Amino acid sequence: MRITRNWLRHAEGSALIEFGDTRVLCAATVEDGVPRWRRGSGEGWVTAEYAMLPRATDTRGTRESVKGKIGGRTHEISRLIGRSLRAVVDFKAMGEHTITLDCDVLQADGGTRTAAITGAYVALVDAVKYLRRQRNLKNNPLTGSVAAVSVGIVQGQPRLDLNYLEDSVAQTDMNVVVTGTGQFIEVQGTAEKVPFDRAHLDTLLDLAVAGCAQLTEIQKKALSE
Amino acid sequence: MRITRNWLRHAEGSALIEFGDTRVLCAATVEDGVPRWRRGSGEGWVTAEYAMLPRATDTRGTRESVKGKIGGRTHEISRLIGRSLRAVVDFKAMGEHTITLDCDVLQADGGTRTAAITGAYVALVDAVKYLRRQRNLKNNPLTGSVAAVSVGIVQGQPRLDLNYLEDSVAQTDMNVVVTGTGQFIEVQGTAEKVPFDRAHLDTLLDLAVAGCAQLTEIQKKALSE
Amino acid sequence: MRITRNWLRHAEGSALIEFGDTRVLCAATVEDGVPRWRRGSGEGWVTAEYAMLPRATDTRGTRESVKGKIGGRTHEISRLIGRSLRAVVDFKAMGEHTITLDCDVLQADGGTRTAAITGAYVALVDAVKYLRRQRNLKNNPLTGSVAAVSVGIVQGQPRLDLNYLEDSVAQTDMNVVVTGTGQFIEVQGTAEKVPFDRAHLDTLLDLAVAGCAQLTEIQKKALSE
Amino acid sequence: MRITRNWLRHAEGSALIEFGDTRVLCAATVEDGVPRWRRGSGEGWVTAEYAMLPRATDTRGTRESVKGKIGGRTHEISRLIGRSLRAVVDFKAMGEHTITLDCDVLQADGGTRTAAITGAYVALVDAVKYLRRQRNLKNNPLTGSVAAVSVGIVQGQPRLDLNYLEDSVAQTDMNVVVTGTGQFIEVQGTAEKVPFDRAHLDTLLDLAVAGCAQLTEIQKKALSE
Amino acid sequence: MRITRNWLRHAEGSALIEFGDTRVLCAATVEDGVPRWRRGSGEGWVTAEYAMLPRATDTRGTRESVKGKIGGRTHEISRLIGRSLRAVVDFKAMGEHTITLDCDVLQADGGTRTAAITGAYVALVDAVKYLRRQRNLKNNPLTGSVAAVSVGIVQGQPRLDLNYLEDSVAQTDMNVVVTGTGQFIEVQGTAEKVPFDRAHLDTLLDLAVAGCAQLTEIQKKALSE
Amino acid sequence: MRITRNWLRHAEGSALIEFGDTRVLCAATVEDGVPRWRRGSGEGWVTAEYAMLPRATDTRGTRESVKGKIGGRTHEISRLIGRSLRAVVDFKAMGEHTITLDCDVLQADGGTRTAAITGAYVALVDAVKYLRRQRNLKNNPLTGSVAAVSVGIVQGQPRLDLNYLEDSVAQTDMNVVVTGTGQFIEVQGTAEKVPFDRAHLDTLLDLAVAGCAQLTEIQKKALSE
Repeated sequence: MRITRNWLRHAEGSALIEFGDTRVLCAATVEDGVPRWRRGSGEGWVTAEYAMLPRATDTRGTRESVKGKIGGRTHEISRLIGRSLRAVVDFKAMGEHTITLDCDVLQADGGTRTAAITGAYVALVDAVKYLRRQRNLKNNPLTGSVAAVSVGIVQGQPRLDLNYLEDSVAQTDMNVVVTGTGQFIEVQGTAEKVPFDRAHLDTLLDLAVAGCAQLTEIQKKALSE
Repeated sequence: MRITRNWLRHAEGSALIEFGDTRVLCAATVEDGVPRWRRGSGEGWVTAEYAMLPRATDTRGTRESVKGKIGGRTHEISRLIGRSLRAVVDFKAMGEHTITLDCDVLQADGGTRTAAITGAYVALVDAVKYLRRQRNLKNNPLTGSVAAVSVGIVQGQPRLDLNYLEDSVAQTDMNVVVTGTGQFIEVQGTAEKVPFDRAHLDTLLDLAVAGCAQLTEIQKKALSE
Repeated sequence: MRITRNWLRHAEGSALIEFGDTRVLCAATVEDGVPRWRRGSGEGWVTAEYAMLPRATDTRGTRESVKGKIGGRTHEISRLIGRSLRAVVDFKAMGEHTITLDCDVLQADGGTRTAAITGAYVALVDAVKYLRRQRNLKNNPLTGSVAAVSVGIVQGQPRLDLNYLEDSVAQTDMNVVVTGTGQFIEVQGTAEKVPFDRAHLDTLLDLAVAGCAQLTEIQKKALSE
Repeated sequence: MRITRNWLRHAEGSALIEFGDTRVLCAATVEDGVPRWRRGSGEGWVTAEYAMLPRATDTRGTRESVKGKIGGRTHEISRLIGRSLRAVVDFKAMGEHTITLDCDVLQADGGTRTAAITGAYVALVDAVKYLRRQRNLKNNPLTGSVAAVSVGIVQGQPRLDLNYLEDSVAQTDMNVVVTGTGQFIEVQGTAEKVPFDRAHLDTLLDLAVAGCAQLTEIQKKALSE
Repeated sequence: MRITRNWLRHAEGSALIEFGDTRVLCAATVEDGVPRWRRGSGEGWVTAEYAMLPRATDTRGTRESVKGKIGGRTHEISRLIGRSLRAVVDFKAMGEHTITLDCDVLQADGGTRTAAITGAYVALVDAVKYLRRQRNLKNNPLTGSVAAVSVGIVQGQPRLDLNYLEDSVAQTDMNVVVTGTGQFIEVQGTAEKVPFDRAHLDTLLDLAVAGCAQLTEIQKKALSE
Repeated sequence: MRITRNWLRHAEGSALIEFGDTRVLCAATVEDGVPRWRRGSGEGWVTAEYAMLPRATDTRGTRESVKGKIGGRTHEISRLIGRSLRAVVDFKAMGEHTITLDCDVLQADGGTRTAAITGAYVALVDAVKYLRRQRNLKNNPLTGSVAAVSVGIVQGQPRLDLNYLEDSVAQTDMNVVVTGTGQFIEVQGTAEKVPFDRAHLDTLLDLAVAGCAQLTEIQKKALSE
């Protein structure tokens, strides 16, 4: 796992996160104003867009721009990333500004959505710093940190950070988003093949919390450089 | 909570599920053949499409057909319903047939996605019966039953089956899909406002499992009539 | 033929119209403002959108939201419903408000467009009442009532209210929209197989006017409850 | 009214029809095969597409290709043209071939849809001749001729062939499609402002039948040159 | 080569340009205001849209409005026409007005893009005259004239104005846009089959400049009538 | 200028090309079969798709997948890249296989289209090697090499490799695609502000040919590592 901060020159915050063969480029953009439905609230907004380059995977996928529409999986992941980051943002402190996190998967080998969340947090920190400085914000809009892992049961064994091969044979697949203080933001467990019981769920949650604690350290290190 | 089985005349299975002011019409369609990527596998497929009538809610929403694209929320819920039902289907036993569950929300007052899953299961049972009869299937493609509830923390109190007002003020919101034997198919917990801890999670899961057990009884009753 | 008024809780007016196996849910929405091209005119607007649930018919149709575009038939019927209702509305009396009639076919067995017009009128009446009350309108924006029937020649015999089977073998198919006082709003006759002569046309028009008179009574009854 | 036959060099049939300031270019294309739903029937198909150049009218309209979707009016007229021509075609005699009529309005001044039908018939005749010759068809697929006019009530007076100014103030507007032998194919009467009675309808129909008889003569002349 | 000025009645400028069997209808529309990104600049804008009628060519093409998207070739040519005309416009002198050139190919036999540029210039001249008169512009927004030709190497021979057959076998294909004073606006040379050397390029440029000089004369004549 | 070959693990060929602050990721995909219109010809096909990440530039651009359509500039550049590479491919030697070049701009600072062509050639070489090995092709499908530069006149001075700032003030902008033996594949010169004369054109072409010769060396070096 490696995070290269400020990989991009133009973005207000950016990070290239590498995780096995998975590589996600996360860029944060700060803009004045908020979406229409939020105008006049005095509160900011944070949103995310996830996408995959056509040849990020083993076989080439058709571009969504060519199809003319965004697929269900892309929508689902973009929404997950946005929700996860919003959970640690104080929108009042932000004022009416919007930060957009673009998470583009350059290469995929499992765990792209959790890598995207973990990397996007780093880009978000720099974007928030930029916003505070530029707009003279009194209070820090960030109320915590966020990291995410995927965990699963493979051949009866609980496993952290499944790569693509493991992911495709996992019986249960769970994405867990955790704050730097170990609280849950999202718990998404899915029985791919067979329904799972409470004991399995508990094991996976333990594993996830421990994994996120490690990622939190790597984020801190990247942000202190 | 009320389930009216066979509300539609043409569909191979159907159910109108009413739940407070929420009303979802679930229709199951049996078709020969499977999507291209599954052809030749000898296995069947189950998929779902969720949608809301424009005036199901308090203010009119623009039709997705008029917008020319399907929104992220619709995609996310359609995928959730499909995954939930596939967890109790033996695709080998189905043969190369497809069952599509259309879940159309006629009126919405919270919990539409979990009502859709619970109602769609009833429609699925009748569609599977039809398929077995028509195509002379030896083994039963259904391996269990599925029900779903939404649970949440409202003003510090764990609550089952949030309506729209409760939902919009909930701190945590969790959708849980459970089999008739009490095992988990999906656990989707989201911190709307503040991250939650393990104790909260455990309380909500207990509540959800109990709620689903009740729904399972209502499904059985509807299916035995 | 049965009209259930106020089938929906949120809409300002609504009616479920059932007609043989045909079931159309009509919802009226009142909104302030008018489309851009009408702004500043001091006049209101009435428009309609027609759609069919995917499993309303014997074989499942692909959703127009999934196709990403609205089909010609849908467009044609939506425009017909809108025109028909506008013929009995005094836009000056309405002020700059818009009423949208959503007509969603839950189940189809012939005559869905005429059922939609007949049901939408009932929803419109309640929406206009709501608008008058809410916005203190001095004059009644409604100048009459509207009902519609389909008539046709089946095996040489003129027939009222064709169901799907009859419709598909009809030589001539005519949709007629008539006011409560028996005047014509729309006359749409189509030779499906063989061109028709004036005598046929006259017979069908007589039949249609008589049929609409019956529907007008049913509307009055529903509205008086 | 002027019809220039074979205005195009590539098309199997074509006509430029001019009618006051209205100019519609009609092109007929013959292709082997029929739409999927008709394959194996041994029968042919005739369809039409209507469109308007952006500056056909007084103010420029946005291209439907740029909007990315076809408007309701375009759909409605395309369907009307297709239905009108199909009424005089014997699909069995055609065999599994498709003729597409493209009707593009180069300049508009009222009555474009009826001009399109009248011109498209001329293009169709040549396309059918081409098809018979090329594919050695035994029987003539054409069973009659088709012409269309718009009629209306302007300031209380029945009028034939409304131009744009008259059209926009007409109380009633009726498009009538008639065969060469004076029978009806389509009767589409619309109350633009006030509902109309049977006497009005009868007057307009008489006017329309007489108008179409004149057009039939002009078509015959164009086709005999 | 023939240019019929004012072929359309509504447009502020128009020309039908015929060139062998190629026929392009060019219409210029004058509108107040400029695109959003240019507002407040005090400068005008000139843009173009190119399209082909479905049966302009030997085989029928699907309408881009039906496909729901504009093809790459259409985009490329529309941009070329717009750039070419903008090179002879003084936007300050125009003020915040927009002129849109619609170039619709009614029939195609090679060289449609260069014919469109040459004809659009004539329509532009009349539209600019209209704009000066209507808005009392002090200075002439036109700084020169524009004409364009396609040249190519066919079987080793340099050729002016390739028709479709020649075009499809050309080794090199070059579109050259030249001002009335013989300077270059666009040079677009493409090796269709084999890369070309400097000598070829020079020969083709000489040929193109000479060809454009002839077209400039034809434009002048059309504009002086 | 730096080319990192095989930046991606899954693609059959890939290169990250860096050029000032411009970074383009080029991935080549080999697939069996060719587009429909080419089937049965025995010949292969090479095509390209160009795109820009939303935050590649100084201000964030809306994703084309979100807009639901591909812009004119994207189309134009994709077509240019495809044409340029096809000029050095022997399709007969390729057999019925397709190579797709995806050129995604991760960061933009001028010259992205020419960088994309230069990098895509390197990815193409590796993809062709893969194809020859896998499908046992007898003859080499590559007939030469391709490199491209942008040149322009900035404040009266001819300049090679304009960055974004220079590009936006250039009077003339020319993209030139040249083979390894110094012949032209594409010459695209555009007068951004003032038309240019033959002498300017000649100077820019000289500059471009010299620049491409340098790039050819860098490509050779990258391919020999």
